[in-house]
Amino acid sequence: MATSRQARTIAGAEGWPAAGLAMPKVAPGRSQGHIRPMDALSPAFAYRLVATDGAARAGVLNTAHGPVETPVFMPVGTAGTVKAMTADAVRATGARLVLGNTYHLMLRPGAEQVARFGGLHRFMDWPGPILTDSGGFQVMSLAKLRKLDADGVTFQSHLDGATHRLTPTRAVQIQHLLDATITMVLDECTPFPATEAEAHASMELSMRWAALSKEAFIARPGYALFGIVQGSVYPALRAASAGALTGIGFDGYAVGGLAIGEGQATTHAMLDATVKLLPADRPRYLMGVGTPDDLIGAVARGIDMFDCVIPTRAGRTGRAFTSAGVFNLRNARFAGDARPLDSHCACPACARHVRGYLHHLFKAEEMLGPMLLTWHNLTYYQDLMRGLRAAIIEGGLVRYAEAVRAGWTAREDP
Amino acid sequence: MATSRQARTIAGAEGWPAAGLAMPKVAPGRSQGHIRPMDALSPAFAYRLVATDGAARAGVLNTAHGPVETPVFMPVGTAGTVKAMTADAVRATGARLVLGNTYHLMLRPGAEQVARFGGLHRFMDWPGPILTDSGGFQVMSLAKLRKLDADGVTFQSHLDGATHRLTPTRAVQIQHLLDATITMVLDECTPFPATEAEAHASMELSMRWAALSKEAFIARPGYALFGIVQGSVYPALRAASAGALTGIGFDGYAVGGLAIGEGQATTHAMLDATVKLLPADRPRYLMGVGTPDDLIGAVARGIDMFDCVIPTRAGRTGRAFTSAGVFNLRNARFAGDARPLDSHCACPACARHVRGYLHHLFKAEEMLGPMLLTWHNLTYYQDLMRGLRAAIIEGGLVRYAEAVRAGWTAREDP
Repeated sequence: MATSRQARTIAGAEGWPAAGLAMPKVAPGRSQGHIRPMDALSPAFAYRLVATDGAARAGVLNTAHGPVETPVFMPVGTAGTVKAMTADAVRATGARLVLGNTYHLMLRPGAEQVARFGGLHRFMDWPGPILTDSGGFQVMSLAKLRKLDADGVTFQSHLDGATHRLTPTRAVQIQHLLDATITMVLDECTPFPATEAEAHASMELSMRWAALSKEAFIARPGYALFGIVQGSVYPALRAASAGALTGIGFDGYAVGGLAIGEGQATTHAMLDATVKLLPADRPRYLMGVGTPDDLIGAVARGIDMFDCVIPTRAGRTGRAFTSAGVFNLRNARFAGDARPLDSHCACPACARHVRGYLHHLFKAEEMLGPMLLTWHNLTYYQDLMRGLRAAIIEGGLVRYAEAVRAGWTAREDP
Repeated sequence: MATSRQARTIAGAEGWPAAGLAMPKVAPGRSQGHIRPMDALSPAFAYRLVATDGAARAGVLNTAHGPVETPVFMPVGTAGTVKAMTADAVRATGARLVLGNTYHLMLRPGAEQVARFGGLHRFMDWPGPILTDSGGFQVMSLAKLRKLDADGVTFQSHLDGATHRLTPTRAVQIQHLLDATITMVLDECTPFPATEAEAHASMELSMRWAALSKEAFIARPGYALFGIVQGSVYPALRAASAGALTGIGFDGYAVGGLAIGEGQATTHAMLDATVKLLPADRPRYLMGVGTPDDLIGAVARGIDMFDCVIPTRAGRTGRAFTSAGVFNLRNARFAGDARPLDSHCACPACARHVRGYLHHLFKAEEMLGPMLLTWHNLTYYQDLMRGLRAAIIEGGLVRYAEAVRAGWTAREDP
């Protein structure tokens, strides 16, 4: 593996370029027993292919914080918490890899603060692997007065207006301070729509930043740095971007700048144009996607990793993804419904309560409503990914996908 | 036991006076396995004294839904949920008996609706015992345009303005529909302050309603009806009320109308005047109390049961009860605090996280903050009750109470 050969340090303190933070190992109460020690015995970060079915792949990611079966869906833990869930509850859904948002954590509580607490794993009680984004996407969508230049982006915090600057080097450094298992390069998520010229310039900037991110990354066994393919909806730009990134060499490759308004058919066309150009021995991650139907379509096209706020955000507003389609539990027709939300689901919302109870919780604006429905939706997503993986291994992905989709349309809804 | 001798029905459907609801046993998904069947083998409701230490008592309540060790603190599950907690989480705190609010549940989703779902135990996934209040207290504090008369109270719902009426008979019927293990008589919580004449008239009304509640109550093995002593801050009225109630005969006796502004010294004086007049073979319940210090004071005076929103409400706003006193986690001094919230506590907030994380959650307004701090506060209350019980059994209550209070003042707070 390229990263293990380049490893300059194990603990991450030695040789750290800028801030010189010692990354003290703060013991938070009794949590130390939960933390897998990061030592020389950590395995190299690696993707092992288990089976293929068409372009779809089942595999295993080895990481410093444990293995992850793929295809995998990562719940989004924006500010050091998957909203409305304890870490134990997230684990109970079957999730093994979660995402943290660099933008939110750098502003509050601050990357150095998280490092002083021993890293994000300890801070949020998630000893398993964590992927952090680079912060670039949220800077463009959330921050005030952002100004992009060739070397990075200067912006004002949406929380207090304070000025911050994010460069490829700083983005990687922040993710190191957070102790991210998988670090993402800083990129510009090209807005949609964009002309080919705009998309080209934006992609070129992202490729330069990718190279700078690679230079800044301190490799450690079991840790990874992923590049991000850009190029908007232009196959030639996507191909050029994939070529540039594989030339630099990353531990995994993300496809960015999709699912931002271009429509599912175009997303699929871009995946078809891109995935075949990515190395088969590296994981592929489609950023910010999506609905259950999106996941099925992308897994069939060879994507291994996903993250999205849809299941958690929907859960907080009363929308449930089920084997019989999407339900809005706020709807009055559920008030007297004594059936479980999804009879195929073993989560607490389904196994312990009737739909009428969930309806009641949302009408009464009780926090338990968002808590239970988030738990359910994440369980549904994890079950779906496990089902897709099993189908790939058995060579029956098309049949499985058809059966799942048939369930959604043959709604057993009253 | 008076109630078992008077038992007219087992399932609660037979002989039901007014609505004639069949109380169908709706099976909510797979939850049936969690429900203790209510059958002829249910034990009689009984209080068994285990030990005394001064006026303080350790005992066991036998109920249709399992035993409860006393003294006991009941988390408040107002609208069919202990706010910010799953039922599993409530159980994990050590709670064995929870309280439901008749006022909230009769308005939404409605007592008949809860009955159609198989009762409150199934609805909220709490197969253990449940005590419901009569609704009278919330009618006076929450409802609009309430009008008290000799036979009951007419009021408008604070939710939609609809007119409702609560009488002693209807209050008991609603609690039957909810399948409350312990039913409370309808009473008037005499406001504070009240002249002796006002308090006398109010107490007399409550005593008449207590008798009517007793008439309406359908006894079943393991189920109980509690009377409520009123009389404001007048020992003679308290004594008259206790005498009236013991004359009627109840399965347990509550002390109401206290901790509403009269001050702890007066509360204690009223307990001293009242508890000694209550039968030793029945449980005693001090309604709506209180802080940890209040609980210690009342246990020392012979109270067995408590409920209060303090630990849950405080948890939602960032206030934590700990062995080192009360902390407000929103305070900036916790931002960099790498210590556990309470090193003596095994709840997830204390065992898995640092104070700086809890501070971060409240600053970021993440739901996990209220969730974890509610969990902690309820754990603290349950641990305190277990500690008091063990101290009573060992004959060391005074010493234990001193040690607990010393911990609060010797704050190890930075």
